[in-house]
Formats: sequence, structure tokens, C-alpha cells
Amino acid sequence: MADRIYRVNMTDLTTSIEDVPSEWMGLGGRGLTSTIVAAEVEPTCHPLGPKNKLVIAPGLLSGTPAANSGRLSIGAKSPLTGTIKEANAGGTAAQMLAKLGCKALIIEGQPKDDIWYSLHFTKDGITINEESELIGKGNFAVVDAVHQRMGETNGVITIGPAGEMRLSAANISVKDPDGKLRSNGRGGLGAVMGSKRIKFIAIDPTDAKIELADPEKFAAANKTFAKALVDNPISQALAQYGTNVLVNIINEAGALPTRNFTSGQFEGHEAISGETMHDMIVERSGKPRHNCHKGCVIQCSQIFNDKNGNYKTSGFEYESIWAMGADCCVDNLDHIAEADHLMDDIGIDTIETSVAMGVAMEAGVLEFGDGEGICRILKEEIAKGTPLGRIIGNGAASVGRAFGVTRVPVVKNQAIPAYDPRAVKGIGITYATSTQGADHTMGYTIATNILGVGGSLDPLSKEGQIELSRNLQIATAAIDSTGMCLFIAFAALDDESCLPALIDMINARFGINLTGDDVTNLGATILKTERAFNQAAGFTSKDDQLPEFFMEEPIAPHNVVWDYTEEEIAKFWDF
Amino acid sequence: MADRIYRVNMTDLTTSIEDVPSEWMGLGGRGLTSTIVAAEVEPTCHPLGPKNKLVIAPGLLSGTPAANSGRLSIGAKSPLTGTIKEANAGGTAAQMLAKLGCKALIIEGQPKDDIWYSLHFTKDGITINEESELIGKGNFAVVDAVHQRMGETNGVITIGPAGEMRLSAANISVKDPDGKLRSNGRGGLGAVMGSKRIKFIAIDPTDAKIELADPEKFAAANKTFAKALVDNPISQALAQYGTNVLVNIINEAGALPTRNFTSGQFEGHEAISGETMHDMIVERSGKPRHNCHKGCVIQCSQIFNDKNGNYKTSGFEYESIWAMGADCCVDNLDHIAEADHLMDDIGIDTIETSVAMGVAMEAGVLEFGDGEGICRILKEEIAKGTPLGRIIGNGAASVGRAFGVTRVPVVKNQAIPAYDPRAVKGIGITYATSTQGADHTMGYTIATNILGVGGSLDPLSKEGQIELSRNLQIATAAIDSTGMCLFIAFAALDDESCLPALIDMINARFGINLTGDDVTNLGATILKTERAFNQAAGFTSKDDQLPEFFMEEPIAPHNVVWDYTEEEIAKFWDF
Repeated sequence: MADRIYRVNMTDLTTSIEDVPSEWMGLGGRGLTSTIVAAEVEPTCHPLGPKNKLVIAPGLLSGTPAANSGRLSIGAKSPLTGTIKEANAGGTAAQMLAKLGCKALIIEGQPKDDIWYSLHFTKDGITINEESELIGKGNFAVVDAVHQRMGETNGVITIGPAGEMRLSAANISVKDPDGKLRSNGRGGLGAVMGSKRIKFIAIDPTDAKIELADPEKFAAANKTFAKALVDNPISQALAQYGTNVLVNIINEAGALPTRNFTSGQFEGHEAISGETMHDMIVERSGKPRHNCHKGCVIQCSQIFNDKNGNYKTSGFEYESIWAMGADCCVDNLDHIAEADHLMDDIGIDTIETSVAMGVAMEAGVLEFGDGEGICRILKEEIAKGTPLGRIIGNGAASVGRAFGVTRVPVVKNQAIPAYDPRAVKGIGITYATSTQGADHTMGYTIATNILGVGGSLDPLSKEGQIELSRNLQIATAAIDSTGMCLFIAFAALDDESCLPALIDMINARFGINLTGDDVTNLGATILKTERAFNQAAGFTSKDDQLPEFFMEEPIAPHNVVWDYTEEEIAKFWDF
Repeated sequence: MADRIYRVNMTDLTTSIEDVPSEWMGLGGRGLTSTIVAAEVEPTCHPLGPKNKLVIAPGLLSGTPAANSGRLSIGAKSPLTGTIKEANAGGTAAQMLAKLGCKALIIEGQPKDDIWYSLHFTKDGITINEESELIGKGNFAVVDAVHQRMGETNGVITIGPAGEMRLSAANISVKDPDGKLRSNGRGGLGAVMGSKRIKFIAIDPTDAKIELADPEKFAAANKTFAKALVDNPISQALAQYGTNVLVNIINEAGALPTRNFTSGQFEGHEAISGETMHDMIVERSGKPRHNCHKGCVIQCSQIFNDKNGNYKTSGFEYESIWAMGADCCVDNLDHIAEADHLMDDIGIDTIETSVAMGVAMEAGVLEFGDGEGICRILKEEIAKGTPLGRIIGNGAASVGRAFGVTRVPVVKNQAIPAYDPRAVKGIGITYATSTQGADHTMGYTIATNILGVGGSLDPLSKEGQIELSRNLQIATAAIDSTGMCLFIAFAALDDESCLPALIDMINARFGINLTGDDVTNLGATILKTERAFNQAAGFTSKDDQLPEFFMEEPIAPHNVVWDYTEEEIAKFWDF
């Protein structure tokens, strides 16, 4: 079907379908969500008010047979950071929406009354339906209900109780091919969906179909592209151990933030490592390899079973395991898996919430290492919306403010993830300068600083880190627009055939003639669009900084501090 | 005694006494605290970390016989707003410190261990003493303990449990001549004192004495000055009904924010008015007139007794009564007085905390009108530091974030007080532009907009409001530097003899020759110093705005919205 813009107005409960404006034609994914948010959302508006908009967009290649192209971008003004925000996830929705001709779905306005709704997206358009049965229920119950009501082929985009409560760490979840969940995790987008009073969006894939301008050229490029992905050694490591392969690597590098960022190494790292996890999965008849969307050839996900061989969680990522593991000193993967499962169901970002738990541990709310305590707080406090649950569910900075803790690892109010910026300076530049608060995925310098991908650069030296972060942030913004999983970047950086094949696929999809420079320019333009939004919202170079304690407290084992001046960091934006 | 700078370093527990640098010589009160904070505190530092400093300074005329000169300024970087902050209060400490030769007391650093301390300020210097007995205790217990340990003549500066917990609404209290409390209320300065682990400062007035350069000239000027104050009709109304005379006046003007800022008039206004309060005080053998410091000739404070004629509270201000009354819809002065007493004891700002209660009522935490509920939350939640207590004790914005409420009346994170900016546009300009977040005392346009003091200006028209607010903010910054109570402004604006007499007193105190222009320049310089600090901390014109809902929701009875553009407001700073 031809691409259209779908619009839902939740103030007057109307929908409309519009032609794609020419200036949005060449955009997809993050490029499109950020462009629409920048064009249509008042930068100073309240993120939970009627003026914010939630924009959902498949990538340029979503819905095509292209390997690893199933990511769905969701954007808005973030209630956590106050900046522009895009988060993407796998699952089945991106491919369905793209095949149904949805270039972007824009949800605007806000119901005046406290009535909840769901949306049903079909080939005939969108219907808005009142919803009461599922209010207060977890994400897994929503998926089950959609299956029962509308059939198992339907895609699902959903929020849990966290999103309903408009907690700043609430995420948006997307059903994967096995009926499990993937999350648009960061920045509190679930709270924006909750502020629109939409519990879930079901997508009926009937008659969903995509047209390729040049199917033969597309197939040839896709073959080259997929081979580059499959042959890449990092892809292979991800396939075997998942992203959690990083626990031992980052611990060895002395950059595994431990005990609320007071050390760079965790004594219990072996117990939570990818290698240990792999053995547990095999022993318990889980699946070490699993795809979050159709067409993924890397398959870094997994099915993690409990001791009795029953399903517990999937998409069990390094950053989640690090946050509950090293940062909260929990050396028990079963506790971590249980917490991961609970957070998927509650619909709350694992990174933000777990780092918040670490700050709460420093405040004495619970003991470091208390994995059962984390699960108890998730079930009894956050899911139920108690005051403590709301403090933690609003993120790490919220906990710091509530309890007067000054060691709070956040940038622009968003929790710093699993790589200590003192010990890996490139990623610190990404945290500081990202248009979306601290987020490793925005410019993953770990590739070059630690993994030797795309060259190598000493993580402890200041030399070259700004350029590295800048190049990766530009490339990432472009990749995030294609619908591609970010993990194609490892192959793209080291295999000469990969990036041209990707560009060939875009050209063969639309019948156009993009060059590599066009793609780089696209990435740079996206970053500048996002930054302009933030500046209009009041952000300055003072916000592009790490918290004070990184400058004051050396971290073991390298005993290094963060030592960039404001002026040095500001050079990031010289492009 | 000759003026000196007293410094206490809480990191290494040392004290020092320094000569006054020449550039600080002509400063006092807010002029001095803001100058010192701007000079010595890193603008981007964590307000609760070791880099912030708490600066305590009597005014230029404090300790002299000048009428109404007993205000004590305390400054720091605010943990509530992130801006520079000064709050001043009456009580006995300013006069004692001035007479002991304390130009300013600068408290810096932070103990590494969780040990609490007190300071004892005497003519021989400052001693730092470990304190354990009073930790967790309320302010009244501190005053009693100081009386018992050191004698009733000692002055006291103290924090309650709120300051110990470093809550953002925690205030600092100062003992008044009757052993009751006055508060440096706004901006969370109590949390800064708590972060330094200082429970209280006792001041021994032995041998305290002030020198006047020209005692005769001083006495003559003081006589003129005091007469201007006493003769002023606003002074007289304040003496009869306290500041609470304003309930009926502001309700009549349609500017009494009611039910969390959803109306401009409160049905129950008569029950909480100054007139009703006066009758209750007389009937219960309280005192309708009472001075918060020696030498006050206005005496707007009062002793408010309970039904049995026992002391309940004093300094029972309009803004506190409005906040618990109209904003929370509590039409029972006994409930409000009980809450006022509890807040004095807990050491928490009545405005911030009560506006926070209003937002919590909108969130459904308790019912509008539930005065007993407010008292219960104060006693059982805030005083005990429960999660709900910390959410509310961190202020209105904290409650909004926790519960996803979008109607949150704050500027720079600080609660908007008792005058709706839609119905009194001048005060809205003050809220928006003040260097310290929403604060009516920073440029009290109510004088001219409502009370007809200093001319009159239609509160509903945009005409002239920026100039009015600017002139008053400049004058206020100067007055806040003298140690004078702000209520001298009513006489200063309407009685030609008042301001020259004030300047004569400063000149007679120091043997100098200030002119009226010098005083205006001082005020302007203070504002610019404060703004420069804020800009260096990352504040921009985007922060000089009122919340979105003031622009979207007309307020009854005038059905007006806030309608200034960012560009219009920015003109405030053209001086």
C-alpha cells in the first residue's frame, strides 16, 4: 500500500489519513519521528500534557525482506529528560505497519475525562475503542487479550501499569514473533502513551504487503548484506552469548560500574556473565539464540528458563543484567531474570529502574545485593504505584532527589548505562552530548574503545574520543532511520561490502539514488534537528555534562576521573 | 566589635576569622550572601555536595537601634531551584551576630562521616561540637535544649527533621524574642545546612555591642524613619490583622488561587480571613500584635492560641494560610494553625509544602478540604521521612512528577505563592523573572496592582507590569541588604521622608555618604550578580516562564489567562 501519515487526535477522538509531505518522503524511523516532533511539538510544552505528540514510525526498510530491518521507532518530548526522544525496538509491529502503508502514526491531544482507549490499526484505517478490562493489567495480559479478541496474528504495541501511572521510566512494549515483548525502553515514552490514555495499539496484518521498486537489485543487495552480518565475529559472539557477552569484557576493562558507580569491577561478575548464562540456558532447555523480529540473522536474543525449565524471560540484555547485577551487586541470575520479567510486564525501563534501585540502595532503602528485595519493590511498590514505587519508577534522579543522595549517575536526568565514562572516555562523550540524555546506543564507542571494531582507540586517553563519538552518533542517527538493528554497525564498520549493500537496498526499495554521503548527511541533519529542539526547550552546553562525582571520585582499578572541560565537550557540535 | 568574616570548614572541622575584603565592605544581608555565593560557589555544583556554601549575613543596619532592622539573610545555591538563593527572616540572631562583629558566616565543605554537629558562636569565635541528642528532633526541642545547655539569652539558628533529611522544602529557623520561631523559608536552605551536618548554631550575645559612626545623626534619622512606618496605613492594617488581612482583599480581587489554582476565589474565605483570625485571637486571649524581632514598630506577627487558650502558633502569615486554606480548600483556621505549628517544628517551608499538598490533593492522595489529613501527613509522613513524606517534602514539582500531575504551579521548580498571576499580571512577571524561582517577596507588585501603594496599576492589563516588577525587584534587593523588613517598602513608596531617613541611618552607621542612586545601583547590581550565577548554572530565558496551564486555563471570576510571550518577558532584563 502507498505510504500515508496516520493521525489520531485523542482530544476529540478522531482519526485522519494524510498524504506524506514531500519533505518527509525520504525519512523513516528516528529521522521521521524526530523531524515530526521538531515540526509539530512546542519544545517547552509539558511532556504529559495535550501539546506533546507520540510519533510511531517504521524505518525506511521496515517491511521489506532486508535482514535485521524490523525496528520500530517511537518519538516524543521525553517526560524523563525534557529533550526530544526516540527509542526503537524489534518485534513485529514495524514490519506490519510498513506493509500497511503507515509511514508514521501521530498521536496527539489528550482526553479530558479519565477514560482509557485502545487503537486498532487495519488496512481500512484506525478505530478508537474504549478500554476498561485491561486497565491496571501487565503487558503480558494485554498480548493475551489481543490474541483472544482479535487473533494471534495481530501485532501489539502496549504499556503496562507504569505507563498508565505516567512514571518517567515507563516504556512502550512491542510483541515479538513468539508473543513475548521487546521494549522501546528509554526516556519514559510509555508515560506519554499513558498521558494520551491509550493502553494498547493492535495491528491487523491482513492484506499487509510491500512494494519494491527493483526486487532483483534488492535481493542481490540483501544477500551481500546478510552475509556481512553473519560472517562478522561480533555477530557470532552475540549469537552465542547474547549481548551479555560483555559482562566479562567490560569487567576486565575496569569499566563495569559497580555498587552505584563506586568501582569499575564486580566481584560477582562470573555468576552473571554471558558464558554462565549460556550454560544455564542450555542446561534448562531454553534457547541460546532467538530473534526479536522476522529476518534477523544475528539472533542475539534468547529464551531464559527458570530452574524448572519454564519460560522466564527473553531479550535478556547486558545492560539490564549489569544494572541489577554489578550496579546493585546482585550476583544471582535467577533474581535478575525474575526482575527482568517483572519489568517487562510492568512496562518499565530496566536500565533506568535498576540504576534507580542502585541509588535507593545507597540511600538505605534496601541492601546492596538484595535481588529478592528488587523483585519485591517491583511487585509491591512500583506495580501498585505506592509512593516508594513512584519515586523509583520515576528514575535514578528522582530517587536521588527524594533521599538527598548526591552520587546519582544521570545526564539530562536519564540514568547512565553499563559503561563507566571515567574508564571509557568515548562513551562519556556520548552520554554528555547525546540529544537524548545518557544513552550508550546513541554513539556506541565501546565498539572502538574496547572491542577493536572500526579501528581501536585507547579508552583511557582523551585523544580522539570526541571525533569517535561524533562519527558514531551521526552514523547511528542514520541507521536508526532505516529500521535496521544497530548491531549491523559492527559489520558496517569492518566489512566494506556491508554499507553499500544497505544503501543499495534503500535505493532498490524506493527507486532512488542515495549515496554514502547522503546517508551521512541524513545522520548529521537528524542530530542537528534534535539539538535545535532541545535548545528551544532551554538546554545549553551546561546540560552536556556528567555529574560532579565523576570528576571528584577516581574509579578502581584504573583510578581515573572524568576530566573534560565544558569547552572541550562543546567542540562535539562543531560540524 | 570590628566586622570580620567567619568561616567554618565542615570537611576538616576548622574555623577561621578573616578581615572583610574591601569589595564586600559596603554590603550586607542579601547583597553580601549573593556576592559571596557568586564568588565562591561553582554554579553547576550539586547543591547538597561539598562545593556548595551556606552564607549567613546580618544586614547593614542589623544590630543598630534602627526600627525593623532585625532580618537575617541566608544564601546558597538552592537544592529546590538550582539557582542562587537568599531567604531572610526575623528573630534575634541577626542583631546578635552583627553586634558580635560577624559580617558574614560562611559554612563550607561537608563531613565525610555521618556525624552531626552544632556550632557555638561567641565573642571568642566559633566552636564545632558533635551533636547526637537532638538529631531527629524538632526545632522547638532544639530551642529548649539550647536554653537549658547554654542559657536563655542565646540565639538559635536551627533545622528540623526536614533539613536533616535534606528535603528540598526544608527551611532554616531562627529563634524570636519569645523563644518562638521565624523561618528563612524558601528554596530549601535547610537542606543545605543539613548537608553540612549542622543541626543548629547557638549564639552567645555576651559582650555583643555595635558602634555607630554618628550616634546623634543616627537617632534623628531613626526617629523620622520609625514615624513614617508607624503612620503608614498599611502598617496599621498589618498591625491589626497581620498579613492575613490579605485573604479578603485578594479574594475580592479574584486572585486568590483556590483548589490547586483552578479558581481565583474561595468560598470559605471568611472563615480564614484576617478579620476572623483577629476575633479568634482576642477571644482566646492571644496577642493580635507581636514583634518577630526587637525594634519592630509594625508588629504584624501575633500569638494564635488554640480553643483552650494554649499557644499554638505565631507569625501566622497570609501566604501560609492561603496555601493550606484556599489552595487546599481548608476553611478551618485551627487545622491550618496546627499544620503551621507542625511545619515550624519539622522545619519545612509552609508555602512550598502546602502548595505541594494541593497538587497531592489533585493527584488523589487526600481530599481537598482535608485539614486533618494535612496534619496527619505532616506528622506521620514528612516528619518520619516516609516515601510519601519525601515526595511532598521535596515540594510541589516533586509531587507533580511523582503522580503525573500537569497542573503544577511552579517557576524554576519553586511553588507559586498566594497571588494568581493571571489576575495580577505584575506579580506574574516577578514570578517569571525572579532570580530565585517563584517568590512574591522578590518584587511585590501587589502593593501597586492591588493595594494602591506607590501609585496604582490595573492588575489585569499588561501595561507597565514589567517596569513595575523591575523597579520593585531592584528596590527589594537593596532593602534585603540593609537588614530591614520588607514591609518598610509601603512607607518608603508613599512617604517622602522614609527612604532618605533610611539612607541617613546607613551613612550614620558607617560614616559614609551613600545617595539614593547608590542604593538603586546596589539593588540592580545584586540582581545582575544573581542572574549571572544562574546563567553560569545553565538557566536561560526559557526558565523565565510560567507553567503551560496558566496560558491554557482561564481563571474565574475574570476568566483571564497569562498572555506574555517569551520575548516580552525577556525585556525585564533590559537595564
